[in-house]
Amino acid sequence: MKKRRYSVILGNLGNTCDRFCSQYKNNPPALEMLQAAAEIPHVSGIELVGTWDIRPDNAAEMKRMLSDLGLACVSIIPDLFSKPEFAKGAYSNPDGKSRQLAIDETRRMCDIALDLGCEMLNLWPGQDGYDYLLSTDYEKERELACQAIAELATAYPTLRFALEYKPKEPRTHCYLARMADTILMAQETACSNVGVTMDVGHSFVAGENPAEAVVLARRAGNRLFHMHFNDNYRSWDDDMIVGSVHTTVYLELLYWLDRCGYDGWISMDQYPYREDAVGAIGESIEWLVKFDAILEANRETFDELLALGNPVETSRALRGML
Amino acid sequence: MKKRRYSVILGNLGNTCDRFCSQYKNNPPALEMLQAAAEIPHVSGIELVGTWDIRPDNAAEMKRMLSDLGLACVSIIPDLFSKPEFAKGAYSNPDGKSRQLAIDETRRMCDIALDLGCEMLNLWPGQDGYDYLLSTDYEKERELACQAIAELATAYPTLRFALEYKPKEPRTHCYLARMADTILMAQETACSNVGVTMDVGHSFVAGENPAEAVVLARRAGNRLFHMHFNDNYRSWDDDMIVGSVHTTVYLELLYWLDRCGYDGWISMDQYPYREDAVGAIGESIEWLVKFDAILEANRETFDELLALGNPVETSRALRGML
Amino acid sequence: MKKRRYSVILGNLGNTCDRFCSQYKNNPPALEMLQAAAEIPHVSGIELVGTWDIRPDNAAEMKRMLSDLGLACVSIIPDLFSKPEFAKGAYSNPDGKSRQLAIDETRRMCDIALDLGCEMLNLWPGQDGYDYLLSTDYEKERELACQAIAELATAYPTLRFALEYKPKEPRTHCYLARMADTILMAQETACSNVGVTMDVGHSFVAGENPAEAVVLARRAGNRLFHMHFNDNYRSWDDDMIVGSVHTTVYLELLYWLDRCGYDGWISMDQYPYREDAVGAIGESIEWLVKFDAILEANRETFDELLALGNPVETSRALRGML
Amino acid sequence: MKKRRYSVILGNLGNTCDRFCSQYKNNPPALEMLQAAAEIPHVSGIELVGTWDIRPDNAAEMKRMLSDLGLACVSIIPDLFSKPEFAKGAYSNPDGKSRQLAIDETRRMCDIALDLGCEMLNLWPGQDGYDYLLSTDYEKERELACQAIAELATAYPTLRFALEYKPKEPRTHCYLARMADTILMAQETACSNVGVTMDVGHSFVAGENPAEAVVLARRAGNRLFHMHFNDNYRSWDDDMIVGSVHTTVYLELLYWLDRCGYDGWISMDQYPYREDAVGAIGESIEWLVKFDAILEANRETFDELLALGNPVETSRALRGML
Repeated sequence: MKKRRYSVILGNLGNTCDRFCSQYKNNPPALEMLQAAAEIPHVSGIELVGTWDIRPDNAAEMKRMLSDLGLACVSIIPDLFSKPEFAKGAYSNPDGKSRQLAIDETRRMCDIALDLGCEMLNLWPGQDGYDYLLSTDYEKERELACQAIAELATAYPTLRFALEYKPKEPRTHCYLARMADTILMAQETACSNVGVTMDVGHSFVAGENPAEAVVLARRAGNRLFHMHFNDNYRSWDDDMIVGSVHTTVYLELLYWLDRCGYDGWISMDQYPYREDAVGAIGESIEWLVKFDAILEANRETFDELLALGNPVETSRALRGML
Repeated sequence: MKKRRYSVILGNLGNTCDRFCSQYKNNPPALEMLQAAAEIPHVSGIELVGTWDIRPDNAAEMKRMLSDLGLACVSIIPDLFSKPEFAKGAYSNPDGKSRQLAIDETRRMCDIALDLGCEMLNLWPGQDGYDYLLSTDYEKERELACQAIAELATAYPTLRFALEYKPKEPRTHCYLARMADTILMAQETACSNVGVTMDVGHSFVAGENPAEAVVLARRAGNRLFHMHFNDNYRSWDDDMIVGSVHTTVYLELLYWLDRCGYDGWISMDQYPYREDAVGAIGESIEWLVKFDAILEANRETFDELLALGNPVETSRALRGML
Repeated sequence: MKKRRYSVILGNLGNTCDRFCSQYKNNPPALEMLQAAAEIPHVSGIELVGTWDIRPDNAAEMKRMLSDLGLACVSIIPDLFSKPEFAKGAYSNPDGKSRQLAIDETRRMCDIALDLGCEMLNLWPGQDGYDYLLSTDYEKERELACQAIAELATAYPTLRFALEYKPKEPRTHCYLARMADTILMAQETACSNVGVTMDVGHSFVAGENPAEAVVLARRAGNRLFHMHFNDNYRSWDDDMIVGSVHTTVYLELLYWLDRCGYDGWISMDQYPYREDAVGAIGESIEWLVKFDAILEANRETFDELLALGNPVETSRALRGML
Repeated sequence: MKKRRYSVILGNLGNTCDRFCSQYKNNPPALEMLQAAAEIPHVSGIELVGTWDIRPDNAAEMKRMLSDLGLACVSIIPDLFSKPEFAKGAYSNPDGKSRQLAIDETRRMCDIALDLGCEMLNLWPGQDGYDYLLSTDYEKERELACQAIAELATAYPTLRFALEYKPKEPRTHCYLARMADTILMAQETACSNVGVTMDVGHSFVAGENPAEAVVLARRAGNRLFHMHFNDNYRSWDDDMIVGSVHTTVYLELLYWLDRCGYDGWISMDQYPYREDAVGAIGESIEWLVKFDAILEANRETFDELLALGNPVETSRALRGML
C-alpha cells in the first residue's frame, strides 16, 4: 500500500470568516499556526497562501520555520481572490493591468516556490468568472486565462501548476467549474505541467461523483495533480470535517485514487469557523486514516464488487466493513 | 429500547419503471410478492397501494393472504397518482368530478382498511400541485385539498391519515412539499387524526435535515404518523438502499425518532429498478438494524454530545462507533 | 391599484464583502449612503442594520438625517449575525449569556425603533441553527428561540416582528429556513405581532415558488409582514438585480401579493459586490415598476388564466405582454 | 441574420408518461403526429426515435410520409433507453452481448438514416452510467463506451454523431453528464464526426450556463452539432415550454450560438404531459422567434454590453428590449 502524505492549508488554522462575520477567531502568528499544524498527527506538509502567509519579505523566515518543524511546503496558492484589483477576474480580466498584476503575483510565488523547494503552484482563480448574463465575453476571457496560465507554465517548466476548480463563489459562475472543463483548459495550454486540483467538496457542489472525476483525469493523461479534502451537504462549499456527512464516497474515492496511480498529497482544506481548528483538521485526517485501513483490508473485495456490479452485494460487504 | 417494527410497500417488490423504460422487471402475482416480503428478515408489515394491490374485489383474499403469512397491513395508499383523471390534481382538482373521484376512491380504501384492521391511510396526493407559473389558483386549490382531507378524516375518525410530502414529481411543484407546510395543512383540517408521513428521501430533496424535521412535527403536537425509508444523492428521489449514500444522518434520525416518542412503523419505500428487490429492501433494513444497535449502545453518549455542542467531539465519538 | 412603497437596506449601498475578499469597495459615511438612497427613483424608505447603521449613540442623528431626506425608517434589523458572541446562536444559544446579549441588543433596537417611528423589527437570526449532525439539541434550541421572540414581541406590543427565513448561510442549517416553518414559529410564539419576512432569493434557495409561499402566509392568518427583493440562480443567495435571471416569477409574485392583501414595503436587499450600488438597486426597482405596469394592465387576464389552468394559454398571453 | 431551422422530436407529440402514470394521453398513429408537427408554424424538420418511430420495416413508409409533408429528418435517436436489455448500460455495458445489441441497433438506425437522407444520429445513451457507489468499474465502462462510439463513427463516416449529455435520469449518474466531459469523450474517439447535442434543460440541471457551454464546444473545435430546447426550474429535467421560467438566458444563448457559428437545427424536446402538445411545442418556437427578433434588433448592443462588462447597463438595456 502506498503511504499517504497528509498536509494542511495553513490559513485553515487561523481566522475563517464569512460575509456576515469578519472574525470568529483571532489570527495567531504564523509560527504558532505552523507549530499547531506540526502537532496534528500524520501532517507532514503545508500549503501556503500568497500574501496572507508568504511574501518575498518573509520567505526566508518561512523556509527556516518549515525546516525547523520538519514540514514540507506542498504548494503555494497565489492570492488571486482577496484583492479588489481582481474583483472582475485575475488571469481572465479584460483589463490588461489587472491581468498583469495577477501574472506578476503568481511569478513572485513561483520564484518563492523554487526557493522553498516547493514543486507545485495551486492556482485557484476564483474571481475568474462572471455573475450576470449578457455582461461578459466568455470566449475572450477564457482565451486570456488560457494564455496567462500557459505563459506561467512555460516560464516555470520545473514547477507543476494545479488548477483548482469550483463551480461558484466568489462569482456566481467560475470558469474553472468542474473536473472536465478544467481538464480542457489544461489541455488548451498545451503544457504538460498544467493539471488539476480536486477539492472533494467542490466536486460535490459540481454534481460530480469524485471517484468518477478522478477517472476522467486519468483518461486525460494523468492530469490530477493535487487533492483537497473536506465534506459538505452537496449544495455549497461548507468546508466541513471529512466524514461528517458522507462515508462510502470517501472509500470509493481513495480506492480510485490508488487505481489511477495518484501519488500526490492528501491535503485538508476546511473552514472550521466555530470549531477548534487543530481538532477539526485532525479529525478529517483520522477519518481518512480509518477509511484507508478499511480499504487496505478490503482492496480485493472492492475489485470484486466492481467486477460484480451488484449494489446489493456492495451494500452487504460495506455493512461488514463499517 | 423500543422494538422497531419494519414494513415494506408491496409494489417495491414488483416492477418499478421510469419514464423511459416501462418494464425493467416482470410483475409477479401478489401472493408471490407477499411471500417474498415475509421472507425478508424483520419484516412484519405491508403497505398496499390502492388499485394496484388492493381493491374491493380482492380485499377478502388479501386479508386471508396477509393473515396466512402473519403480516400486518400497515397502511393503504390510495392511488391518487397513476390515473389520468387526476393528472391535474386529486383532492385539489378544480374540476369537481375529478375531485369527487379522488374522495370516493379514498373512501373505498378507508372501508377496506377498516375491514383489514389497518389503522392508517397514507395519503400521497402527488398530482396535487402545479407545473407552470401563472396557471393555477393556489389559494383555491389548497382550500379544496384541505376540505377534502378534512371530510375524509371526519368521516373515518378511527383511522389515521398520514400526509406524505414531497417537493416535486410528478408535478414540478407539489402542495405537500415539506414537513412544515404539511404540518400546516394538517392543522388547517382541524382533525387530530391527520398527521404526516416523512419519506427520508423526500426530506433530503426538500433540503431538510430529517432529524430536525422530526422535531418540528413533535413541537406541532406529535404530528409524525409514519416513516418511509430510503436514501438518495439529495437532488432527486432516487429511492435507493438505506446507507448507500449517507450514514450519520440515519443515526441522528433514529435518535430523534426515539426522543420524540415515535412508535410507528419503519417502512421501506424503494425503487430497486435494476436490483433484486428482496435483497435491496433487506439491505435497507439490515443497515437500520445496525444503526439501531449503534444507537442503543451509545444513546447516553449521544445525549452528551448534543449537550456538549462540539462537532469535533462528535466526530471523534462517531469514528469510534463505526 | 395599490401604490407600492419601495425601500432599501442601507448597508447595500456600502461595502459588501464575501469570505474571500473583505473589501470590494469603501464604506461611505452614513449620510452619503442615505443621500444616495434618496436619489434612487421611487425609494421612500430605509432599513437600518443594528450596530452597523444604528446605535443608541447615533439614533438622534439618524432620525434627523432621515427626516431631512424625507425617508421613512421601514425596519431595524438587529445585528444577530456579525458578532462572534452569536457564533453558535443568538436567540437559540444554549449559553444563557449569549442569548441574553441577543435579547438585550434587540430590545435596544426596539427602543430606537419606537423613537424613530419605525413600526417593524426585521429579525434575521442567521446564526440560530447548526452546522454538524449529532451536535445540537434541536428541541431545546428551538424552544429557546421561540421563548426569546415571544418575550420580545410581548414586551413591545406596538411593534411588529418580522422573522426573515433563509435555509442556510451562515450556518449549514438555519432554524428559520422556509416560509412554513417560520409560520409555525410565529404561531408558537402565540403573538399576533410576530410574522414573516420573505426574501425572494431565500425563497428560491428554499426550493419554494415565492407566490405559493405568499399564499401559505395568507392562509395562516396574514402572517406576511415584509418583503425583500433580489434575484439569484436558485442554488445560493446571490443577491442580484431583480429580473437578471427570472421574469415571470416576479409577475406572478406581485399578482399574489395583491391577491393576498399585502400592503407592506417592497424592499431591496442586494449585495452589489462589483457593481455601482445605486445603479444595481435602482435597476431592481425599475424592473419591479415595469412588472407592476404589466400586472396593472393585465390583472383580469391573470385572473382568467388562473381560472383557465392552461399553461399554453398562459404562455401565449405572457408572450404578448413582454 | 441566419435563418433558424426549427424541428421537433416526433414522440413529444404523443403520450409522455412518468414513473407513476403510464398514460396521460393516447398515442396517435405516426401519420397523425407528423401532420400535427407539420402544422406547427416554423417547423420543417423531425427527429425520430428508433423502434418507437422508425424501424427497418416502416422506414420506406416514413420516408414517403416525411416527403409528402415536406419535412426533413433531422436526426435519428436510437432507442438505447427503453429496453431492459440496456438497464445496466448500452455502449458501456460490461456484458458484451448487451453492448453488441446496442451497437447493432445503432447500426440499423445509421443505415436507415442514410436511406432517409438524414445526416445525424443523436446518441443519448441514458442508461450508460451507474446508480450506486463501489459497484462499477468506471474506467472500463468509459473505455467500452468510447470504443463503441468510435466504431460507429468510423463505420459511418458520412454521418455525424451528436452525443447528448444529461447528468442524471434514468441512472443516478450518467457518463455523458455535462458539456465538457462529453467534449472529452468526443475527443477520445478521435473521430471528427463525433460531437455534442446540448439540451438546454440538461445544461441547467448540470449547473451550467448554456451560453458558456456553447463557448466550450467552440473552443474544442466546433463540437456542438445539435440543440434541444425546453425550460425547467434547474433542479430536474422538467421539459417545459421555452420561456416559462427563464427569459434572459435564451437571449444570451441565441447570441452565442450565432457568435460561435452554430448553423444546426433548433429542435424542441419537451414532455407536455398534461398540455396540448402542438400548443406547447408551438409556444416554445414562438418564444424563440420572439427572442431572435430581439437579438436581431440589438445584436450590436449585445456586442457592446459584453465589451462593457457592466451588469447595471445590461439590465437597463434588457429592460428596454422586453
